[in-house]
Amino acid sequence: MRTALLQSSGQPGSVDANLAALDDAAGRAAAGGAGLLVAPELHLTGYAIGDDIARLAEPADGESAKAVAEIAARHEVGVVYGYPEREGDLVFNSVQLIGPDGARANYRKTHLFGGFERDSFTPGEQSVVQAELGGVRIGLMICYDVEFPENVRAHALAGTDLLVVPTAQMHPFQFVAESLVPVRAFENQLYVAYVNRVGPEGEFEFVGLSTLVGPDGVARARAGRSEELVLGDVDPEFLSASRENNPYLRDRRPGLYASLV
Amino acid sequence: MRTALLQSSGQPGSVDANLAALDDAAGRAAAGGAGLLVAPELHLTGYAIGDDIARLAEPADGESAKAVAEIAARHEVGVVYGYPEREGDLVFNSVQLIGPDGARANYRKTHLFGGFERDSFTPGEQSVVQAELGGVRIGLMICYDVEFPENVRAHALAGTDLLVVPTAQMHPFQFVAESLVPVRAFENQLYVAYVNRVGPEGEFEFVGLSTLVGPDGVARARAGRSEELVLGDVDPEFLSASRENNPYLRDRRPGLYASLV
Repeated sequence: MRTALLQSSGQPGSVDANLAALDDAAGRAAAGGAGLLVAPELHLTGYAIGDDIARLAEPADGESAKAVAEIAARHEVGVVYGYPEREGDLVFNSVQLIGPDGARANYRKTHLFGGFERDSFTPGEQSVVQAELGGVRIGLMICYDVEFPENVRAHALAGTDLLVVPTAQMHPFQFVAESLVPVRAFENQLYVAYVNRVGPEGEFEFVGLSTLVGPDGVARARAGRSEELVLGDVDPEFLSASRENNPYLRDRRPGLYASLV
Repeated sequence: MRTALLQSSGQPGSVDANLAALDDAAGRAAAGGAGLLVAPELHLTGYAIGDDIARLAEPADGESAKAVAEIAARHEVGVVYGYPEREGDLVFNSVQLIGPDGARANYRKTHLFGGFERDSFTPGEQSVVQAELGGVRIGLMICYDVEFPENVRAHALAGTDLLVVPTAQMHPFQFVAESLVPVRAFENQLYVAYVNRVGPEGEFEFVGLSTLVGPDGVARARAGRSEELVLGDVDPEFLSASRENNPYLRDRRPGLYASLV
């Protein structure tokens, strides 16, 4: 399944502009043969918008979700996007996958990063959220979540083939995109799509470097430091063969890992 | 604490020659200011020696351990070396740290790699073995063990400052030395000394690339593809500051990791 990574910071504060950017990217992704488009963390609203996060938060089945479903259906491509999710008084840092058929899978970030996120969001309580698309089992995660090896291992044990990680990765943490993400793919024998914002926003400088990495730790697509749409392929046959040759999941010894929980 | 990494395959099958090589390296390490010398997996006997593994196996306090203790005392340097350990009918793939004062800490490889190791060894049952040396808490591990993120996490949770990993890393797994080991150091906020054999031995081609990596994921020492002794520094103050700035251990959510055990 060809996967398109939308590396962009959109227009922080403007939901309409960011939906339009998603529509444009979905058209280009579909024209390039992609079955899935992934946008960054908090793509819908922007990241460094302070209290506007709460003001712009929407339910998982809100108006913007309906707009994204229309985009997914019209371009016949699954769409993953980050957004602030409202449920009553609570706001979560969420990503949602909406398929061309309108099916939704929603994930709430479990590992919040730093003071801004802790002030703005409630942490999620479900670590593994998955959906099927084009014969591939897709898992959802957000930014800092992927830096914890336990989280990605939980996905591997649950059968995730392609882990989709919208992110807002800042300077000076390029090491995460360049080294940690490929190691996560290798040690867990799955694909990882890590899709970042780029450029300055408020007090942050997002570093781009979005990448799709295979279970061999090798990038199938890698963006630079500018706004880009990059495409790469997820190959289920390659994944099966790689898992045969790298039996990490079979060679684990869970009885020795008690101190982790 | 300055740490010396002995990248060598010694003389497979000759314990005397490998003890002499350890003595020589300990002298050079001490002259370079090192407080710790680390030799590769199965340094004492060689790796690809078939049934000679069992024939040359010794107790943890056997004759070779006494010889290593003498080397450590004479050069005033701690020594970590790999060897086949005999206990009754069982043979383990072990590493031992012997301090200048003769104190011993012994670790038996818990995650055996491939058919040769499964045929030759009994897996160990204790995942975390530690010792104090020069104010640094040292943890012991062997080769394939480090590729499982759970193992290194267990050391981090137990307070390991410097994880010492004698290895016999083969072509085509250079990715482990080049990418996975630095990520382990970063995600767990500790130093890792990964010390490999080098060159052809039996059916194997060992890839060298021994490295000492800091908690920032940056190498303090890195060997190439030949026999070498390389030195690098473990800095407890740098480690403390790095842990403050990278709160991975504090930000974990153990309640979400139940599927791992």
